Amino acid sequence: MHWPVWIPKSYNATIRLSAGHLCAPLSTQNGFSPSVPTAELQREVAGDYIRQFLSHEEIVINESSPDLILENTTTAKWTSVSVATAFMSPSSALCHQFSHRAAVAHQLTNVLHESFFEDGIKRATELAAYIKEHGRPVGPLHGLPVRLEDSVNVKGIDTTNGFIGRIDAPPKEDAELARILRSLDAIIYCKTAVPQASFAAETENNIIGYTTNAYNRLLSSGGSSGGECPLLALRGSVVGLGSDIGGSIRYPAALNGFFGLKLSYRHLPIEGVDRVMEGQDMVPFSWGPLSSSAAGLTLIVKSILAQEPWISDPRVVEIPWQNYVYEDFVQATKGGRQLVFGVMRNDGIVQPQPPISLGHKVIDWQPPSHEEANKLSMATWLFDGSEDVLKNLALSGEPIVDSVAQISGSKPGKQSTTSEIANTNIAIWRYRKKFMDYWNSTKDLTGTGRPVDAVIAPTYPYAVSVIPVITADKDVDVYPADFSPLILTLDDPEIQHGSPVGISIFGRRFQDEKILGILVALSSA
Amino acid sequence: MHWPVWIPKSYNATIRLSAGHLCAPLSTQNGFSPSVPTAELQREVAGDYIRQFLSHEEIVINESSPDLILENTTTAKWTSVSVATAFMSPSSALCHQFSHRAAVAHQLTNVLHESFFEDGIKRATELAAYIKEHGRPVGPLHGLPVRLEDSVNVKGIDTTNGFIGRIDAPPKEDAELARILRSLDAIIYCKTAVPQASFAAETENNIIGYTTNAYNRLLSSGGSSGGECPLLALRGSVVGLGSDIGGSIRYPAALNGFFGLKLSYRHLPIEGVDRVMEGQDMVPFSWGPLSSSAAGLTLIVKSILAQEPWISDPRVVEIPWQNYVYEDFVQATKGGRQLVFGVMRNDGIVQPQPPISLGHKVIDWQPPSHEEANKLSMATWLFDGSEDVLKNLALSGEPIVDSVAQISGSKPGKQSTTSEIANTNIAIWRYRKKFMDYWNSTKDLTGTGRPVDAVIAPTYPYAVSVIPVITADKDVDVYPADFSPLILTLDDPEIQHGSPVGISIFGRRFQDEKILGILVALSSA
Repeated sequence: MHWPVWIPKSYNATIRLSAGHLCAPLSTQNGFSPSVPTAELQREVAGDYIRQFLSHEEIVINESSPDLILENTTTAKWTSVSVATAFMSPSSALCHQFSHRAAVAHQLTNVLHESFFEDGIKRATELAAYIKEHGRPVGPLHGLPVRLEDSVNVKGIDTTNGFIGRIDAPPKEDAELARILRSLDAIIYCKTAVPQASFAAETENNIIGYTTNAYNRLLSSGGSSGGECPLLALRGSVVGLGSDIGGSIRYPAALNGFFGLKLSYRHLPIEGVDRVMEGQDMVPFSWGPLSSSAAGLTLIVKSILAQEPWISDPRVVEIPWQNYVYEDFVQATKGGRQLVFGVMRNDGIVQPQPPISLGHKVIDWQPPSHEEANKLSMATWLFDGSEDVLKNLALSGEPIVDSVAQISGSKPGKQSTTSEIANTNIAIWRYRKKFMDYWNSTKDLTGTGRPVDAVIAPTYPYAVSVIPVITADKDVDVYPADFSPLILTLDDPEIQHGSPVGISIFGRRFQDEKILGILVALSSA
Repeated sequence: MHWPVWIPKSYNATIRLSAGHLCAPLSTQNGFSPSVPTAELQREVAGDYIRQFLSHEEIVINESSPDLILENTTTAKWTSVSVATAFMSPSSALCHQFSHRAAVAHQLTNVLHESFFEDGIKRATELAAYIKEHGRPVGPLHGLPVRLEDSVNVKGIDTTNGFIGRIDAPPKEDAELARILRSLDAIIYCKTAVPQASFAAETENNIIGYTTNAYNRLLSSGGSSGGECPLLALRGSVVGLGSDIGGSIRYPAALNGFFGLKLSYRHLPIEGVDRVMEGQDMVPFSWGPLSSSAAGLTLIVKSILAQEPWISDPRVVEIPWQNYVYEDFVQATKGGRQLVFGVMRNDGIVQPQPPISLGHKVIDWQPPSHEEANKLSMATWLFDGSEDVLKNLALSGEPIVDSVAQISGSKPGKQSTTSEIANTNIAIWRYRKKFMDYWNSTKDLTGTGRPVDAVIAPTYPYAVSVIPVITADKDVDVYPADFSPLILTLDDPEIQHGSPVGISIFGRRFQDEKILGILVALSSA
């Protein structure tokens, strides 16, 4: 796709009609809307607002959970073509009466880097023909639309990491994730926006500008999965995959009211993922699912692991999906037996309640210093003195965006020496051991003879999974008089009003089935 | 233990009576031997030679396999005290009539850094009392003597890595490996010699000098598990654990005629292991068992994994022992179904035969360039410009030994930059992916629809497990007229005569049970 070579930097939330084949202007059932309203005029665009641009049939499909969509496509109740066209515009040349949800969602919140809807609809057509002829679906994700993040290589489609200089240099091969999803007969159809360098807590770059929250366009959608989450909120996607190193799945999932899970490192394939600062393996990134339902997270993880990704990706460990653990924790969480949760309340805002109401026990969670973990992580993420970020900026001469500059700096920094890297690795191992020892030590507090089963905590920045619980209310969510922020400055309750609030639940490494079981049970409680 | 502060460097194979409480001189059934013979006078010391210093009862115990010893200790047929004293001298002050096998083995080939036989016998006495009182064993490795390598921290016992400057600074805690072995009621009783810096293919340091091969004291025992392997050959140990980064288990196992397995990285615990160049995590070391029998390898791996080491070591992945895979491959290898082996013959020496004789199929193994892998590995192992090695040498002012200097250099080198480290990581990932793709591609050649089950290859330097097959014969093992060595220079057939020859069998990462199953079946064929 040919992007403009240069777009001036912009911090407002107006919509950039960046992809030529998205329908513009918006079309409604009553005709064309002359323009997208500003964020001030139309703060929330989720729910009823976006529905005005869609047909009833589309809305039913878009707002179904991934497992329900799959149930309908695999039983031929819905054709894969009707599902695909509910999300995707069928042609770059043709504006249909209805603009189809992912396209509309992009126009409202600026979420897509790349759309390849024609490919998606073509594949959906093949799948529909197959099921019609043979009476059975082809692959286990038959016709399920799955979105990917910018950094996952898809053959022939740019991977830019938000850099202008990387436009028009598409990869020649699919990443393992894309290959496996295609082999499962999922329909991949778009790549969502990331911050410049894929490395910030808000999503802004010089290609498409700023990505906003669908519930409140005065606010950020977060980052680095900042494109995926408003798309989910607007139901332009029901399930997708994102990467996370320091909160990139969890933070936007919490801000946009969705389910997200940072899986254990080395669990899902990363071969063919093109990241900035590649080669940093000290605190590495992980992949994980984001979905409009907890069951959607399970569906995608289980399906990918069934393909034995360790056979074709040397960085994946051979740990199959453990369904008995998952089912056990679904039942246990629902009350089959008492679980014990650690609860971390110390940011003074979130008071998690659901497990208590289900009869589970909670204990105070007082782990080793998070500040220490944060310092160690930052040391690894900035280990190359920003060399790679600056090199990518230099490809086009574009400026660094502020939110990225705040993290990586805008000038070359000092590179770590080899011995410093070794010492940081050792410090990370020592910290992890301390954290593990603390986790193990809770067995003296739980009364069950085993340590806590999972921990419930505010979302950012130390959690693993995110479950949406409430929306912010300016009248209820008032700060205590003695509240002082630890790191971040406070936001304006007027602006926050109506935004989603998520909490996090995390477990031990490589015990992702437990967390998924707990999430599914809690979300249906 | 107080070692001499300085011992002049020595390259001959004479025996250094370094540990005060080993019996010296050697005692035989007929009295005392005045001195240990030179290597020229007594080339081989295994078998009948060492037996002259031992009682019949000791010999029966020493030469039993680990699983048979365990069967006898757990059924109280043998007491754990009689087993312990067959390997360990009971007191530093008291020279018994017989010198007990580990002590004798040390005097003949220079294999021990540390012996803590009194602790071992004390624990054996407690275990014997328990089984006598309760009629059942305590832990699953009840009374089994297990040896450790120098780098595994044992509370109160020096970990020197072969550096004089690290004598008399013992660790305050057991490593996870030691802790788990004790919890299983194994008896840990000695730590074996490693090269200076634990980082060479022959075992020499300025503390105890040079460690020799038990079958041929004119030859090296290899490294870095150069202490363990002659001890196994002399049956002063039946099972132990060593580390391996570039052949440290496999190379000495092949040279000394024993079974060894480099397990997949992150499978056995490494917490509390004190290595030189700690913090290098690009091509990391792994732990694995060495034993006088293939079943001994299985026993130790299975027992440790049953303790869930991932609960207390953050670098271990949660992959339990998969007994069904192991049993399946034992049966399959014995002829239950046809397996397909890749065979790599290109060093011109080893022509592996056993699988063919069992009716399995072989195909030629032509993987991506090993030279490329070797270059990448060396880049990571030398990544700190020898800073850590030189720092450790400076603690005492001792000189670097030649075999270490040949690898790391004796002067400070250039440290890699951060970007160079990142690029090396990427190159390693690319190489691993190429290797994996090659492995997967063999499914078109096997006729079974799956890729090769395992690969049989010469031992050094790219294998995983080692199985002893024959001994070198100067009349049979002649080089072809057109043979030219690839890397190493040729040895003198006269000197090699009578030395063990091992071959390697390796499988995919995290499929260790398959390899153990194959080893056990082949070794009983």
